[in-house]
Amino acid sequence: MRSKFFAPASITCFFAPVLQDDPLKSGSLGVSITLSKGVRVSVEPSDDLTIIVNGEKWKFPTVQTIAKELGFRGKIKIEMDFPAGCGFGMSGASALASAFAINEALSLNKSFFELADLAHRAEVMNRTGLGDVVTQSFGGVVVRKSAFCPSKCSIDRFLWNLSLDLLIIGELPTERILSDLSLNEVARMGRECLKEFLRNPTVKNLFKQSKVFAVRTGLIDVDSTIADAIEAVESSDGLASMIMLGRAVFAVHGEVLKDFKGIYLKVGVDHCGVRMLD
Amino acid sequence: MRSKFFAPASITCFFAPVLQDDPLKSGSLGVSITLSKGVRVSVEPSDDLTIIVNGEKWKFPTVQTIAKELGFRGKIKIEMDFPAGCGFGMSGASALASAFAINEALSLNKSFFELADLAHRAEVMNRTGLGDVVTQSFGGVVVRKSAFCPSKCSIDRFLWNLSLDLLIIGELPTERILSDLSLNEVARMGRECLKEFLRNPTVKNLFKQSKVFAVRTGLIDVDSTIADAIEAVESSDGLASMIMLGRAVFAVHGEVLKDFKGIYLKVGVDHCGVRMLD
Repeated sequence: MRSKFFAPASITCFFAPVLQDDPLKSGSLGVSITLSKGVRVSVEPSDDLTIIVNGEKWKFPTVQTIAKELGFRGKIKIEMDFPAGCGFGMSGASALASAFAINEALSLNKSFFELADLAHRAEVMNRTGLGDVVTQSFGGVVVRKSAFCPSKCSIDRFLWNLSLDLLIIGELPTERILSDLSLNEVARMGRECLKEFLRNPTVKNLFKQSKVFAVRTGLIDVDSTIADAIEAVESSDGLASMIMLGRAVFAVHGEVLKDFKGIYLKVGVDHCGVRMLD
Repeated sequence: MRSKFFAPASITCFFAPVLQDDPLKSGSLGVSITLSKGVRVSVEPSDDLTIIVNGEKWKFPTVQTIAKELGFRGKIKIEMDFPAGCGFGMSGASALASAFAINEALSLNKSFFELADLAHRAEVMNRTGLGDVVTQSFGGVVVRKSAFCPSKCSIDRFLWNLSLDLLIIGELPTERILSDLSLNEVARMGRECLKEFLRNPTVKNLFKQSKVFAVRTGLIDVDSTIADAIEAVESSDGLASMIMLGRAVFAVHGEVLKDFKGIYLKVGVDHCGVRMLD
């Protein structure tokens, strides 16, 4: 019997990056939302490590790190509901679900937080994410009040039942974008948005702070369609902002996003985090 | 639209009670398992507080405390999958799911841990439980490494996919039982079983430590059927122990429990904790 694990995709509203020498003490503060879609991973031990994503063989350093750390050789089969590199945390979700699937296949008896911390470490070491694994470990609208690995991170959650509209325009080269910005400035703004959100934790204020962050960091300007799409949603009484970091928009009451060039879809909020599928 | 919340039932394998003046610093260390069945709660504001459990009007002090703290008046409708007082944490699950349902109905925008801590506090104040709410907030096989409220408790989890056999013989007067025992002795044994379990966290060792606890505390002797039923499961190559605190047995490969007097049923393990139902 091969077990399959699901990890939800996640989108980040605003964040404050913290990078230390120790990956377990690195991460990001901020707010992210886990989605009802994500990745499903199953594994099958054999002689060589092969990673198959949506039917294609991939080099996938973050997942390779997981396999190596857990002593796994074999096939890792990943089904992704979102494109990689667009701000949906596909790398973190793949790492997380792979860690759980390997633990099950090899009967390693590792605990939830041992596996989640391992996935976080692999993400940070490979520079593919900072806050995704923490978010995806829990589920809901996840508030990261500190920037640590899942077992050490101080979090809170809101189990909001949102129907989200998404517009995916394209990839965003995260590393280049981040190196163009002052990370200290980004971190300062992220912390400020977090503080303002927690003073009044409502859906409306979440979108407000998200947009403040996107505008003040200048990230909203990476693609002119983003600001246009957000404005269109707001004009039709919806709420919208930019997904961090992706050339993508998330909204409630954002059906108007259909009119823009890109992939439009509707998703719900996951309330559970990484888990085994029946 | 009235939202319905689910909180899983939970059974305790072994525990070490800690009672302080502050309910948020009280609780229990130990290991408990959340179940795929539990309680479903929906609420409807009106002039008077009424609590309906499986169609009958109840006095339910723990849930009344929740309503009072959140300023709720109206109908709280609870569907319970297990009888109360038999060790399935029905009181904690009802408190937890009620807190979330009221939060939603009154748009209070309280966070996950604000609501979970409130339910924990109501349980401890009403002496209806110590570790159930923490367990039911998370899901899976939950290890409580410290005895605090959900937001402060140091926990870990195992997402084991067990098919459990249950035998419910009857109620157990928790308060009287506990007052007959030396709580310090119980706590010492609970801590020892926890330590031994964490040295080798397997399903087999969980049952082993559970039985050590039941035997050494003498709790197994409250009903002679319990030891007989456990022995019958073990004789047919299953694993079994006593539910703390209930006149009840839990097992894997325990189909033989059908032959004993009482309610027999099969359940799975919940991997999620309290959540909104669609």
